[in-house]
Amino acid sequence: MKDKIKVGYVGLGRRGRGVLKKCISQMADVEVAYLCDLSQERMETGKQYLLDQGRSEPILTKDYHNILRDPTVDAVFLMTGWDGRPQMAKEAMLAGKYTGIEVGCAIRLEECFDLIDTYEKTKVPLMMLENCCYGRREMMALNMRELGLFGEIVHCDGAYGHYINDEDTFKNIGEENPPHYRFPHYLNRNCEHYPTHALGPISKVLNLNRGNRMLKLASFATKSVGLKAYATERFGPDSEYAKLPYKHADIINTVITCEGGETILLTLDTTLPRAYYSRNFTVRGTKGLYTEERKVGYLKGMAEPVENNEKEFFEQYDHPLHREYEELGTRGGHGGMDWLVCRAFVESVKAGTNTPIDAYDTVLWMCIAPLSEQSIQNGNMPVDVPDFTNGKWKSREPITEGKYCLDKVCVDKDTKIFHDIE
Amino acid sequence: MKDKIKVGYVGLGRRGRGVLKKCISQMADVEVAYLCDLSQERMETGKQYLLDQGRSEPILTKDYHNILRDPTVDAVFLMTGWDGRPQMAKEAMLAGKYTGIEVGCAIRLEECFDLIDTYEKTKVPLMMLENCCYGRREMMALNMRELGLFGEIVHCDGAYGHYINDEDTFKNIGEENPPHYRFPHYLNRNCEHYPTHALGPISKVLNLNRGNRMLKLASFATKSVGLKAYATERFGPDSEYAKLPYKHADIINTVITCEGGETILLTLDTTLPRAYYSRNFTVRGTKGLYTEERKVGYLKGMAEPVENNEKEFFEQYDHPLHREYEELGTRGGHGGMDWLVCRAFVESVKAGTNTPIDAYDTVLWMCIAPLSEQSIQNGNMPVDVPDFTNGKWKSREPITEGKYCLDKVCVDKDTKIFHDIE
Repeated sequence: MKDKIKVGYVGLGRRGRGVLKKCISQMADVEVAYLCDLSQERMETGKQYLLDQGRSEPILTKDYHNILRDPTVDAVFLMTGWDGRPQMAKEAMLAGKYTGIEVGCAIRLEECFDLIDTYEKTKVPLMMLENCCYGRREMMALNMRELGLFGEIVHCDGAYGHYINDEDTFKNIGEENPPHYRFPHYLNRNCEHYPTHALGPISKVLNLNRGNRMLKLASFATKSVGLKAYATERFGPDSEYAKLPYKHADIINTVITCEGGETILLTLDTTLPRAYYSRNFTVRGTKGLYTEERKVGYLKGMAEPVENNEKEFFEQYDHPLHREYEELGTRGGHGGMDWLVCRAFVESVKAGTNTPIDAYDTVLWMCIAPLSEQSIQNGNMPVDVPDFTNGKWKSREPITEGKYCLDKVCVDKDTKIFHDIE
Repeated sequence: MKDKIKVGYVGLGRRGRGVLKKCISQMADVEVAYLCDLSQERMETGKQYLLDQGRSEPILTKDYHNILRDPTVDAVFLMTGWDGRPQMAKEAMLAGKYTGIEVGCAIRLEECFDLIDTYEKTKVPLMMLENCCYGRREMMALNMRELGLFGEIVHCDGAYGHYINDEDTFKNIGEENPPHYRFPHYLNRNCEHYPTHALGPISKVLNLNRGNRMLKLASFATKSVGLKAYATERFGPDSEYAKLPYKHADIINTVITCEGGETILLTLDTTLPRAYYSRNFTVRGTKGLYTEERKVGYLKGMAEPVENNEKEFFEQYDHPLHREYEELGTRGGHGGMDWLVCRAFVESVKAGTNTPIDAYDTVLWMCIAPLSEQSIQNGNMPVDVPDFTNGKWKSREPITEGKYCLDKVCVDKDTKIFHDIE
């Protein structure tokens, strides 16, 4: 068990800077030895975050290979945009660095095979930093499952319902910065490119890769009119952006069928005006349900209709770790889940163990985009989901309460969860 | 224009009795000349409903052919269970009777073709009495569409989210009555067998059969465990019902793609404990949305998040007819929509016009079950939806505000909407 680890931190866009400032820079057991970005200005900003916390000065580099070549670096955080990230992850694993990779999918299915081959060869842990696996609702559902409250689980829903034309997709248009890294994906692709906030937690609930697996998926795309309508209104009907042939559908529904007979419905919904953000995280079973969309938990026998009782469910069924976390005070972004996912990664590096979201999980979630694209291109035909575990899903230990990913954060009662915090 | 019509009323189960009591028996311009059911007791009950309202005594018959043979009968209501109803409708049309048929699907696709062939040959109107087309929310959405508030519509959701193990599926088990007519469908079939409460209103919103049409659908079924779990708990693990090989999935999601580039997501969800009833009626467009699930309307530019503003939307955007209806006092069951759908049918018969939900709509909605069954049997393969209009969908007049189905009810301002009510 290492007392302190040395990491390289790659990618200082909005997300990269946010996680650095609110999470990583505040961890006394993490030495950020390198910051890497193509922008000197962003690197300077990141450096200041570290100095503000009394951390040692990092080396700034525009070439992440410099990090990989340093034998004293234990781990890398890959916080760049989607393109090229799998290649970086592969090189990081080959260099023997624990690899934490921000959420997002592969562009091509081959990238997933390449990553898993690299993992099989090197056994270097690869972890998608899927913060939503550590969300309070999602963890409560996991706890409810452990308590048997759902009965037999048969279906889960999840979504990325978030209108981001303003805040992401078209954000930098007309400014000096290049367009947002998502922009080309909206222009050139038509697929479920952002499933993991929903799918990560659902995978844990359904024990995917651990006794269960995805069999196939099919995706369904609406026409694409929201992006053009937005650009027309903002830039004018004669503007370049109003005339671009956007490929991305406004709403994409994907249904995944699983070995255990469960189905998963994923919805990508980011280009049309919405009334609220929602991941529509829903778990349905023979004895009960939880659904984020209505903020409702329900157990068989309760009188119908039930409305707005989520708070009562938190009080009764919060995951033990989250209960403690809430009492101690959550920190970092997004209700505390950013902090938890980073800690889970850091603690794995310190302990020299595999990561709680592992390479099989990571590539399984990453493959959704290219498979979904294939289904849409082929008229909604179902597409087989590869078994990246090569049969190991059958015998891999199911995640049980005591062994859930968060045990990496919840160290021992004497020193409290965040013993590593100053 | 007839002042009064003469009808035969077939099927006096719970639904048939309810509509007779709360709606038809209260209409002074409808003479129920026949009541038909296999149960003498039920017919006597129905007769009493009519007598209680001061109506003339109906002829009671166990054979609906007696109704069809009476040349003075203008129309029939077919309120029986699902099986055999298409055949009855066909015979009624061949006998020249306006045919009102309760909601439900065909068992076999051939029944749909048979009905539409009969319609083409006879031109006798066939109307599915889909009450939800006349729901307040659904009509508000139609009005919002007419007002252009959605912008371009790209996607609709709909569901039958209603836990009915107790109140329907297993209701009569162990009693003297035969099992509920739904029971064999849960035991022997696996398909979207109850789409019309959602699909009816969505079809109107999307102008299906009138400038737009369904292209294909694919359906996805979970495992079937809810029915067995219910039977095990209620009747014991060794009971006959706990051991039956139920085929019906607990949750079935169906995605329909349309000529106009829209998608429709339908969910059938009736065997697992639920927190609330929901048809999840949702319309999404480039400028706004309405969603029943959160009781929210949203127009581009409103601040996010919006919660529980449905009442304000009713105040602003209620369909004109529904606004008047609310002021006069709704009547009949289900928030007034049963009354409206019956009136729409009756007024069509009186006027000698086609029905606002017509034969093409009816068979289109009825075909979902057999097509869905086919998709599930073939591993979720997309299935083409037949064009029952044989190309006429292209030129059939879109439904516009003044011509919406409800103009049959909303007669004129001088006499008020329900001039026919005593």
